[in-house]
Amino acid sequence: MAHSDPGGPAQRPPGEVRERILSAAVDLFASHGYDATSVSQVVAQAGVTKGALYHYFSAKDDLLFEIYHTLLTEQLASLDRIMAMGLDPAGALREVIRSLVETTSAEAKAVTVFTREGARLGEERWDALRTEWRRYQDTVRTLIRDAQRAGKFAGHASPEIISWAIFGVSNSMPTWYRPDGPKKPSEIAEELSDFVLAALAPSPRRDDR
Amino acid sequence: MAHSDPGGPAQRPPGEVRERILSAAVDLFASHGYDATSVSQVVAQAGVTKGALYHYFSAKDDLLFEIYHTLLTEQLASLDRIMAMGLDPAGALREVIRSLVETTSAEAKAVTVFTREGARLGEERWDALRTEWRRYQDTVRTLIRDAQRAGKFAGHASPEIISWAIFGVSNSMPTWYRPDGPKKPSEIAEELSDFVLAALAPSPRRDDR
Repeated sequence: MAHSDPGGPAQRPPGEVRERILSAAVDLFASHGYDATSVSQVVAQAGVTKGALYHYFSAKDDLLFEIYHTLLTEQLASLDRIMAMGLDPAGALREVIRSLVETTSAEAKAVTVFTREGARLGEERWDALRTEWRRYQDTVRTLIRDAQRAGKFAGHASPEIISWAIFGVSNSMPTWYRPDGPKKPSEIAEELSDFVLAALAPSPRRDDR
Repeated sequence: MAHSDPGGPAQRPPGEVRERILSAAVDLFASHGYDATSVSQVVAQAGVTKGALYHYFSAKDDLLFEIYHTLLTEQLASLDRIMAMGLDPAGALREVIRSLVETTSAEAKAVTVFTREGARLGEERWDALRTEWRRYQDTVRTLIRDAQRAGKFAGHASPEIISWAIFGVSNSMPTWYRPDGPKKPSEIAEELSDFVLAALAPSPRRDDR
């Protein structure tokens, strides 16, 4: 995503224009709501032309879709990189938690907007997002399930409940995480990993419980 | 909440009328959105008079407030009962998780509606709900913190992160829990408790990790 072109207003790198539009849409949808925000307001706040916006987005609901789709795409790419690293299950789960917490905290406002307004998207758009999110969930659950079957993770709970304990923390972050708060995302991720992996540590002492 | 009066349409027990109105509001807000739902539609679906609605609720946004306030009030009353039982920390946390999972699953649609539409409430209403929810969080965190200080719970993570792992599962339930799904709320609660308490079990073996 690094661009060497310094870019005046007329020659901004394409990726930057798209990001500015999405960021303006997130700000406006968060402050005034989706219904009360017009495409003209997004264009004005982003400092781009209407033509530029319609180059990247077909309509206002496309902005709403892309706000979340962009985050999910980034999270899935990160997940795929982690799964390709050949780590042991505990190391892989620790990396997954770090990626989730860091990407969610960086896009907390986008998640809040989507939680409130996502219901306005049509069924087709929802299906696309659901498919992506399901792939994320399934990958994490398969990681946990395989490790439980191999005796590397304890089986106190199903992969579904364990994964919701992880996703539940990251999904709730937009309601409590503050960039100027006492803990950095990396510290939050480490605490959550320590907690989850303590629960998943296979117990060598069957008979004293 | 048990009423001996069988009640015809004109003499329904007061509690039942209020519940019917809230339940109709939840259904309509969930299907059509808050903005697109009128008080007349709520009255028609609940099968009550407009006068009955205005006896209990001052305006449409009062319905939105009470949808969540009623659930929070029930959850806080349940929490207080649990804390008064004199259980050990593990037993108390198990009861808290059961109460949270069962009340949330029973009101999953209300939680979904409030998540989407709650931002429409004014600051004063939000403050009232935030104060209640904060009391819930603080009570659970104090339970965890005291047990960690007494060496009865392990200290892998802070009470904040541990409580979010619990609240995160219950908050996410409206997105995945189905009454006709494979697991009953009591089973989901037991799995989550087993998982959380495994992470919190104080380790007697400091040196082998």
